[in-house]
Amino acid sequence: MGTLIFTTDPADPRLDDFRDLSTADRRPDRPGGRGLVVAEGTVVVRRLFSSAYPVRAVLGVERRIRELEPELPEVPAYIVPAEVMAEVVGFHLNRGVLAVADRASMPTAGEILARSRTVAVLEGVGDHENLGALFRNAAALSVGGVLLGAGCADPLYRRSVRVSMGNVLRVPFAALHPWPSGLDSVAEHGFRTVALTPRADAVDLRSLGTGKFALLVGSEGHGLTPGALAAAELAARIPMAPGVDSLNVATAAAIAFYELAAR
Amino acid sequence: MGTLIFTTDPADPRLDDFRDLSTADRRPDRPGGRGLVVAEGTVVVRRLFSSAYPVRAVLGVERRIRELEPELPEVPAYIVPAEVMAEVVGFHLNRGVLAVADRASMPTAGEILARSRTVAVLEGVGDHENLGALFRNAAALSVGGVLLGAGCADPLYRRSVRVSMGNVLRVPFAALHPWPSGLDSVAEHGFRTVALTPRADAVDLRSLGTGKFALLVGSEGHGLTPGALAAAELAARIPMAPGVDSLNVATAAAIAFYELAAR
Repeated sequence: MGTLIFTTDPADPRLDDFRDLSTADRRPDRPGGRGLVVAEGTVVVRRLFSSAYPVRAVLGVERRIRELEPELPEVPAYIVPAEVMAEVVGFHLNRGVLAVADRASMPTAGEILARSRTVAVLEGVGDHENLGALFRNAAALSVGGVLLGAGCADPLYRRSVRVSMGNVLRVPFAALHPWPSGLDSVAEHGFRTVALTPRADAVDLRSLGTGKFALLVGSEGHGLTPGALAAAELAARIPMAPGVDSLNVATAAAIAFYELAAR
Repeated sequence: MGTLIFTTDPADPRLDDFRDLSTADRRPDRPGGRGLVVAEGTVVVRRLFSSAYPVRAVLGVERRIRELEPELPEVPAYIVPAEVMAEVVGFHLNRGVLAVADRASMPTAGEILARSRTVAVLEGVGDHENLGALFRNAAALSVGGVLLGAGCADPLYRRSVRVSMGNVLRVPFAALHPWPSGLDSVAEHGFRTVALTPRADAVDLRSLGTGKFALLVGSEGHGLTPGALAAAELAARIPMAPGVDSLNVATAAAIAFYELAAR
């Protein structure tokens, strides 16, 4: 059980981990210059508590901290008035509670491949909201892990954590490098690598056979690079109405996860 | 071909349709108090040009207006410096071009049902971004139209138009009332009404037979009301990993549209 600490001083140095959240992802003082893991709102905070990330502290208005009290880990939980919270984090946060954690060592790509039946492999997914949404979809549709090729954003960036509803904290992910030749190791683990693409010469996603699948997904703007496409065993497309640009990358991935989950 | 008009005066009354865009959806001076249809960015502006909505004017920086010049309808196209555009609309708009149109009369629910094989029927989808995303998915996955039950937001709200990538301008929609008894008319048009729900007693979405389907989708927070669920012929669910809250409503609908498109 954590320690409840009441404070009304926005300059209290014990709240420094929560200060100026809009820049919380850039922390030159931290390993790799990357920020702490920040969870916002009771749903995501609970998910952080049950994750492998070592929680450092919790900050919130009393009502929210009381809701979480039975589940609090052994860390300080700072209770502040809403206006003090806004002053510390730099804006009004209507979810009313935050928790921060250190980053933790993660499984390797090989470990994720060894224990999954379906994985997503991303290239150039640099938008934090799309990345977060993709993790939410991966969690819901039983994807075992996410491998990050070249050009991907950091899934632990604050906005990704929020949009994922905290699912970046429970779907394992790892960098896959070198890129794209690291895709060879995916095949060596027995996965069929399927590139998701709107190209007309790709096969219908519904026509895939059975097996363990690695779904290769590119950026919303430019799609997969030729090198990544060439490394895939086959290219598949979602049948779409003519004249429509495409689906959002996380939505397209969700449809493919749904299709692959049946195989 | 439209008329190109250069101006550098942010107070120019000819630009009033574009003024203070963040409140553009509330126009007490307009029929029903609803705003004009506002398209942002070249992709969505092009979609507005090819829609049934009567375009009133275009506003943009010169580079963007020149790109659109061959397609301009017979309306004034105001060319302004970027900083004047920002002052008129009230914020920096990095897409650089806007077009506004009047609202237009739309097909009725009966007309949409008569010419569609798949429709979406929404209840309580009050979030403009979710609504816009749902229209984008409907367009991509060949849904013939969208029927709006109780509690839905206005698809022509500026943010919905943008998130839909302009697809609210080409997927027909209509109010369905009274609600939920208007669902009877959906069945009378030969549609099988399928309620999409995470409830465990719903059938697997993959087990639906063939036919014309009306997919009934509820709000992300509360789902469908008992009255709407009772009016549906059957309830179907997307098989999901245990412990995951649910998918975003537009994403769940996209998966169902994909599944229904094969039937």
